[in-house]
Amino acid sequence: LYRVLSAHRQSVDQRRTYRNYNEAFIGRHIGPRDADKKVMLETLGFKNIEELISATIPQNIRLTRDLKLTNPMCETDILKRLQSIADLNNIKWRTFMGMGYYNCVTPTPILRNIFENPGWTTPYTPYQAEIAQGRLESLLNYQTMICELTALDITNASLLDEGTAAAEAMQMCFRHHKEKRNKFLVSNNAHPQTMAIVKTRAHALDIQVDAFDGTKDVFDGRTKLGDLFDLSQYCGVLVNFPDTNGNVDNLTSIVEQSKAKECIVVVATDLLALTMIKPPGEYGPGCDIAIGTAQRFGIPLNYGGPHAAFLACRDYLTRLIPGRVVGLTKDAQGNQALRLALQTREQHIRRDKATSNICTAQALLANMSAMYAIYHGPKGLKDIAKLIHEKTLYLARKIAENEDNRVVTYMPFDTLKVVVKHQKYIRSKAEARHINLRYYPDGKHVGVSLDETVTDQDLKDLVWIFGAHEEYEKTGEIKFEDDLLENGIESTPLGRKSEFLTHPLFNTYHSEMKLVRYMKRLENKDISLVHSMIPLGSCTMKLNATTEMIPSSWPHFASLHPYQPPSQTKGYQLMINELENDLCQLTGYDNVSFQPNSGAQGEYAGLRVIKSYLEYQNEGHRDICLIPVSAHGTNPASAHMAGMRVEAILVQKDGKIDINYLKEKLSKFSDRIACLMVTYPSTFGVFEESIMEICDLIHSCGSAQVYLDGANMNAQVGLCRPGDYGSDVSHLNLHKTFCIPHGGGGPGMGPIAVKKHCIITSQYMIYRYLIQIMLLIIPLIVTFVHHNHFGTVSAAPWGSAAILPISWAYIKLMGGQGLRHASEVAILNANYMSVKLKDAYKVLYRGVNGTVAHEFILDVRDFKKTAGVEAMDIAKRLQDYGFHAPTVSFPVANTLMIEPTESEDKQELDRFCDAMIRIRSEIRDIETGLMDRKVNPLKCAPHTQRVICSSDWNRPYTREMAAFPASYIKPETKMWPTVGRIDDIYGDTHLFCTCPPVTDQLY
Amino acid sequence: LYRVLSAHRQSVDQRRTYRNYNEAFIGRHIGPRDADKKVMLETLGFKNIEELISATIPQNIRLTRDLKLTNPMCETDILKRLQSIADLNNIKWRTFMGMGYYNCVTPTPILRNIFENPGWTTPYTPYQAEIAQGRLESLLNYQTMICELTALDITNASLLDEGTAAAEAMQMCFRHHKEKRNKFLVSNNAHPQTMAIVKTRAHALDIQVDAFDGTKDVFDGRTKLGDLFDLSQYCGVLVNFPDTNGNVDNLTSIVEQSKAKECIVVVATDLLALTMIKPPGEYGPGCDIAIGTAQRFGIPLNYGGPHAAFLACRDYLTRLIPGRVVGLTKDAQGNQALRLALQTREQHIRRDKATSNICTAQALLANMSAMYAIYHGPKGLKDIAKLIHEKTLYLARKIAENEDNRVVTYMPFDTLKVVVKHQKYIRSKAEARHINLRYYPDGKHVGVSLDETVTDQDLKDLVWIFGAHEEYEKTGEIKFEDDLLENGIESTPLGRKSEFLTHPLFNTYHSEMKLVRYMKRLENKDISLVHSMIPLGSCTMKLNATTEMIPSSWPHFASLHPYQPPSQTKGYQLMINELENDLCQLTGYDNVSFQPNSGAQGEYAGLRVIKSYLEYQNEGHRDICLIPVSAHGTNPASAHMAGMRVEAILVQKDGKIDINYLKEKLSKFSDRIACLMVTYPSTFGVFEESIMEICDLIHSCGSAQVYLDGANMNAQVGLCRPGDYGSDVSHLNLHKTFCIPHGGGGPGMGPIAVKKHCIITSQYMIYRYLIQIMLLIIPLIVTFVHHNHFGTVSAAPWGSAAILPISWAYIKLMGGQGLRHASEVAILNANYMSVKLKDAYKVLYRGVNGTVAHEFILDVRDFKKTAGVEAMDIAKRLQDYGFHAPTVSFPVANTLMIEPTESEDKQELDRFCDAMIRIRSEIRDIETGLMDRKVNPLKCAPHTQRVICSSDWNRPYTREMAAFPASYIKPETKMWPTVGRIDDIYGDTHLFCTCPPVTDQLY
Ligand SMILES: Cc1ncc(COP(=O)(O)O)c(C=O)c1O
Ligand SMILES: Cc1ncc(COP(=O)(O)O)c(C=O)c1O
Ligand SMILES: O=C([O-])O
Repeated sequence: LYRVLSAHRQSVDQRRTYRNYNEAFIGRHIGPRDADKKVMLETLGFKNIEELISATIPQNIRLTRDLKLTNPMCETDILKRLQSIADLNNIKWRTFMGMGYYNCVTPTPILRNIFENPGWTTPYTPYQAEIAQGRLESLLNYQTMICELTALDITNASLLDEGTAAAEAMQMCFRHHKEKRNKFLVSNNAHPQTMAIVKTRAHALDIQVDAFDGTKDVFDGRTKLGDLFDLSQYCGVLVNFPDTNGNVDNLTSIVEQSKAKECIVVVATDLLALTMIKPPGEYGPGCDIAIGTAQRFGIPLNYGGPHAAFLACRDYLTRLIPGRVVGLTKDAQGNQALRLALQTREQHIRRDKATSNICTAQALLANMSAMYAIYHGPKGLKDIAKLIHEKTLYLARKIAENEDNRVVTYMPFDTLKVVVKHQKYIRSKAEARHINLRYYPDGKHVGVSLDETVTDQDLKDLVWIFGAHEEYEKTGEIKFEDDLLENGIESTPLGRKSEFLTHPLFNTYHSEMKLVRYMKRLENKDISLVHSMIPLGSCTMKLNATTEMIPSSWPHFASLHPYQPPSQTKGYQLMINELENDLCQLTGYDNVSFQPNSGAQGEYAGLRVIKSYLEYQNEGHRDICLIPVSAHGTNPASAHMAGMRVEAILVQKDGKIDINYLKEKLSKFSDRIACLMVTYPSTFGVFEESIMEICDLIHSCGSAQVYLDGANMNAQVGLCRPGDYGSDVSHLNLHKTFCIPHGGGGPGMGPIAVKKHCIITSQYMIYRYLIQIMLLIIPLIVTFVHHNHFGTVSAAPWGSAAILPISWAYIKLMGGQGLRHASEVAILNANYMSVKLKDAYKVLYRGVNGTVAHEFILDVRDFKKTAGVEAMDIAKRLQDYGFHAPTVSFPVANTLMIEPTESEDKQELDRFCDAMIRIRSEIRDIETGLMDRKVNPLKCAPHTQRVICSSDWNRPYTREMAAFPASYIKPETKMWPTVGRIDDIYGDTHLFCTCPPVTDQLY
Repeated sequence: LYRVLSAHRQSVDQRRTYRNYNEAFIGRHIGPRDADKKVMLETLGFKNIEELISATIPQNIRLTRDLKLTNPMCETDILKRLQSIADLNNIKWRTFMGMGYYNCVTPTPILRNIFENPGWTTPYTPYQAEIAQGRLESLLNYQTMICELTALDITNASLLDEGTAAAEAMQMCFRHHKEKRNKFLVSNNAHPQTMAIVKTRAHALDIQVDAFDGTKDVFDGRTKLGDLFDLSQYCGVLVNFPDTNGNVDNLTSIVEQSKAKECIVVVATDLLALTMIKPPGEYGPGCDIAIGTAQRFGIPLNYGGPHAAFLACRDYLTRLIPGRVVGLTKDAQGNQALRLALQTREQHIRRDKATSNICTAQALLANMSAMYAIYHGPKGLKDIAKLIHEKTLYLARKIAENEDNRVVTYMPFDTLKVVVKHQKYIRSKAEARHINLRYYPDGKHVGVSLDETVTDQDLKDLVWIFGAHEEYEKTGEIKFEDDLLENGIESTPLGRKSEFLTHPLFNTYHSEMKLVRYMKRLENKDISLVHSMIPLGSCTMKLNATTEMIPSSWPHFASLHPYQPPSQTKGYQLMINELENDLCQLTGYDNVSFQPNSGAQGEYAGLRVIKSYLEYQNEGHRDICLIPVSAHGTNPASAHMAGMRVEAILVQKDGKIDINYLKEKLSKFSDRIACLMVTYPSTFGVFEESIMEICDLIHSCGSAQVYLDGANMNAQVGLCRPGDYGSDVSHLNLHKTFCIPHGGGGPGMGPIAVKKHCIITSQYMIYRYLIQIMLLIIPLIVTFVHHNHFGTVSAAPWGSAAILPISWAYIKLMGGQGLRHASEVAILNANYMSVKLKDAYKVLYRGVNGTVAHEFILDVRDFKKTAGVEAMDIAKRLQDYGFHAPTVSFPVANTLMIEPTESEDKQELDRFCDAMIRIRSEIRDIETGLMDRKVNPLKCAPHTQRVICSSDWNRPYTREMAAFPASYIKPETKMWPTVGRIDDIYGDTHLFCTCPPVTDQLY
């Protein structure tokens, strides 16, 4: 009946694990027990699970063999194996390469209570604000920190990395100028990877990127930038501050010249430096956008990620900000509340007109960085900066003592660029002490960046490497002359005079007890997977198993710099190669690139691959991307970013792609079609029968390609493979199907998988990038004649490498059979719910045999008429039942899309269905007039303790009906919304996106 | 003004940490900021903190120099240093030594969500049941598990270790026979350490322990035990089951013979074996007590501890059970609730008449073991047992194939004892493969115990070691013949037939999602240090810093067997030696023994040291222990256990020891005085001026000694040292002053520190013990002529070694100045509160200058008359304010003792004082008749959501007054009690101490 894995046992070790199916990890990951599955199948009227799957997935795309993966391993063995892989990463090396990545100390209370705590790692993006006030507050803290340090007005709640933040800033400038000024200027002292990403992005949008020599002369205004470039043609100019060579320059001249020509100055900056140097915002109008990374605020290097990037700007650019912004508003009772503001900018509303394609960002890391600032406070942060600065000045002085060296950094904060006599000799000395420095590709310069973790011994080693006088050899002690800091950057006009982080929030939680309590108080406001199912359609909120999560905290994965030589990171290479092989096996593709840090980023990268491929095929003129109207908002937004024109494809009444309509478009645009971008199973929750036919149709159209959005891979793994049935490129949301937790809105990973014919462009993206870094060729975008290499999409070669062990472990723990069974149960769970709910609600779409895929849509549009009730009311009412809402109004307005995943067991599904059925009967009470149309449990939902516990209660229903509408909602364990229904309009018309002044004591 | 540590900085590294006082760990550990301290001192009317300390601590005992400790290290460096120490523990070795300690797998969700989660590690023992239902439920689960596996009626909520559980069982037998039968019989097949502890305990109580040869003949009844011993003289008989050599014997004969003579059979057993073998309870009446450890249910070896031990018995012995027992009762609203049952048995009520001196036990580990059983369920547990059994039978068969070997274990579960030709040869082969076996001291036998973690490779290595035929060499695969398990123990009359753990609780939470949610649901019911201050006087609920906690999960500390050769555990030796040195430096003592697993255990050990010392001085007749009436209940209970007679010392009206009364006693009993047992500063919260005089008085009395209860060391560290002012022996509650978290009722550590003249007896206890283990001399108690070695108090040589890194790290992080400042602030905080509260409440005792020590007593006795309000009512009302109560009715009935510790900041102290002051005014409303004497917020406290959210509310005060009596208690963050006022009497008269039948679904 059920594919029993014990049949596949091969050794005693596996017998230990697999003697009983449910005792294996598979039984830990999958919710329902075998007996439950049986009952559920009976409810559905299927004899076994294979019958259900056969009825659901078109026969012509079924995978008819087992997946070729290694046998599943038990949790203990996986951790052992991963430890042995991790040990191949050499953590003896100290890396002072800088370039936007710095060693730092993650305060252990933050590590343990946020990063290692499922209460913080497993919630979703805080769209349901009433049960997300904890992380909304934390993100608001983050925004406040960014605004105050940059001295700008508004910021978003994180971006993917510093490089893409720069590209987003360029797009803002471009848009601000109504896409009329298609030139962008970049100082050649920006970080190379930032430049590479900006140029890659610009290329697709037909923006011309020009570089200027960011010399002291130019900054000081002796050479006028405006004389070199006609700034009135440029939408913006990007400068690094401090720059990649360590210099802090005076921005005044450039800002004034740019301002005069309405060219926006974008400053790529460093949060720690900003505690000591005059921040961008204080250079006055014209200096209007700042970007950077919050990595060194307590986030490990992570071999490149995850880290939170930031983008702050002046008020007038607010509506152009990419990504999510947290803002203040009030709730139904008039109490202050937080929620995501200005959502109309975003891809899920504005689609290809959105300010960017950003969906998943880096919420978890933003929260950690904000807590780091809260933990240290302004004085602590500045102390850290001062010590680094002092050591840098000391090192500069020492290095200069040796006449073989010349320090070319004239105004350093933490970084020095040095002309040395023999770069190779310096390098061999550094290697003898296990130190990585930055070796400039000209063979003449060496860079060194200091940070929070630099010890006396590190300094001594550096002094030795540069052959300077080790005067402390006598005493064993380094002495900092007093004049070092006295003549430091703070003493110059570039020093910061203004205060920052003066809000009590940053000046209160400095004892560990207080910080831990604050973090717990926020955590406990939010619903996460540790409380109840989060049935968000399209989001795949499945188990993020502890064993999968543990390795991400290991120093062997966490402490590596992304540009460390590969000889020191062999563990990462091995793990990533294995993951690539496994993902290829699961998808039917031939190669994977791990650069993209989110699904949306993957879409953009994948579409760029298609464009490059078309160019390679001499069909570079093809520019139309066909996208069904039901697509996720990121699809059109990404297509736009990739420089394609979006043509919408209509769907039929039954939810399927209208093939005739498609054919029309194909013939109409035939030689302009670049690709079809399609989600499968569809966003309507059905496996369309005609997917192969559709793919064939596209392929019959010259070199046109199929991009398959991999967000719904959780319905397919082990059952069918996009690479087999006709897709050419996909992104895979590792934070959905492959168990990376959502982190309350990131991190994620959206690697792209491609067929062989596309490898030439996609894979090269990575290796090329790596070669660039390693050989230290500044990665200017070169369109290779033979390779059609289109560039770089992320700052780090393998995106957020440190969370890849999660997906690696999931696949190895489950094995082929386990993964397949997970897909089967995901489909079983969804079908079971759709049947349980079918009498109460209309299930909008079903497949040919009446089944749904791994998710389904409930149509609640009628209730608007019959009871004045909308999908949002049901979503909010579910909070009273202790549940997070399903996806609201995607892909169809005023519907609910439910995706239970395989990790939820029957009892939880039953409980959720019961809640939905009770809500239906509450709606019926309104329909029949038993309950008022305005004042009823749905319209007034969610109900807070403030409301329920109040002496005043004059509703036409009881407190119990409001807060405890079913026996399983018990006062002892109920998760309460902490604010009432959010007032979105008020918030957007009274925009306020930093911490409000404190009116009350902090408890 | 404030001792600024930056004055002591010595290097750049330290400047990094100490540039600013508050940024150092000291500032993380200590709550109030410098500015707060200033305000607080002003409130007290002191110019600086030294003035306060001088006014508080008698000048003649002040430490007038700095502590000699290493400089404080920052958190990063501490973790690095500890990692390098940990690396000295060699974890390459696999250990199959058994003897009550087995490798096992800690499920990672349990590790991360319980052991590494401050929500579970930082609460106190659940005396305040209304805000402790989560861990009470978990402990009830544990009790259910123990009762079902042993098939006995009732059990407690854990004991310290298996050895002491055996000793407690012996005492139960002794007590049951009204202390008339002073003989106890022990099978020589018990674990050696168990025997040693039993004999040590027996010696003090004048019980004669006789050993019998536990041969098969005796068990099978061919040789009658009753013929060898007159069982009617024995209160009980202890047998190991399975025994230390691996045999499972039929207990029928011994049980029947014993029963006939009313001699109680105590069975030391193994929980995992009990899933396959007929449990003790099923051997019928007479087989009435079972003891053992829950270690192998998911708790790492931990080099000996912490682990939870259990003791289960039949109903008729209920009132003799040692330690805490969780039981069902109902709350004020009649709802089911849990609480600690039958407290009248315990030391804090019954004092020297208590069933034992147990206070701190092993709650955290009991909870983890219970979760392990919940995670695996009965079938999973049995599967694990079966696999181990199968491997053991396989190994036995293989070993026997080599004629040089003879397996002497005739009925094994997981352990084999083998006669080998050359023990040394076997040992050298084992060592070549990095395997530890048990080498019997006779030089002829070798023991091997298998466990959950044994892999194919382990088995192959063992086969090779015993020189058996490696037939799998051809195929590489081990094959288990089917007849192995078929003829295994289950097929014999000794097999278990009965079901166990059939309760839904053990058959529901098998997916990780479900388990994690269950653990979170329980966690969120309880108040712990992550929520608010827990001002329990005498308990020192201070910060348990994350950095201190992290190393306890490292495999280098967690995975070692306590009897592994010291050559493999050098890291532990080094760490323990350093900790010993530091503790000596802090206390003025000369040596420390780390055996005792709790304060009470330390008291017992310390008093035994004193007894031994007296015997060594030929004053062994001294047997009176003088104890002030205000002493903690453990003191008289321990004195009783140590075989001393307790004489109470009265205190004066002002709380001080009545010196004249003391002198009277001294002259009355002069040559019988063994020691004075005194707490300092006193349990009344004052530093008595006359402590030196008192110590001198005692010492003037022959060889009489001073035992100083170290529970209040948190007021003394760095300020005065017991070893300097006259004490001879102390225990140190590392779980109070030295930052081991309380774990909801354990683990703890109560090492004893002694002056040089006592070392001879105390220190020897350990080394002697170690030597015994290492040389494998069965540790019979030998009273050495020269050493007066009194025996063994714990099963493991260094008690709960795995939590010692916590205290080690705390001391190193703080350094001498930091520790001293912590004591100062502990005293400052207490004094600040006592002054804030002095207008509302009477502070019962103060020192000569009007100050208190680190804790103080509020006298609320008057309110009984004026308002019918008792201390308990105030305690419960505090829950409505979100606080855990102070210590109630200790040391004075109907008072509250408050100890804030140094880790709470001024804001938290203010908030707590505000709550107390508001409660005072609520009392005044009763006094003035504004509020009813029966129905008022105090008498009805605590108020649950069930009550507040109900439509029915007919109290003479509002819902808001009940639940939100101050502005800082906000609905969004309020911690609610989950049940109403506990009905203790109902519970004790309707005793029910396992999981109740499920009446409702499990949510
Ligand atoms: C169908 C679909 N495509 C793309 C995405 C975008 O993925 P990401 O949020 O990782 O950018 C999502 C995210 O929810 C999605 O559901
Ligand atoms: C004064 C005093 N002595 C002894 C003890 C007993 O310590 P333990 O609980 O570790 O056995 C305590 C415990 O609270 C105490 O307060
Ligand atoms: O446990 C105490 O009662 O201190």
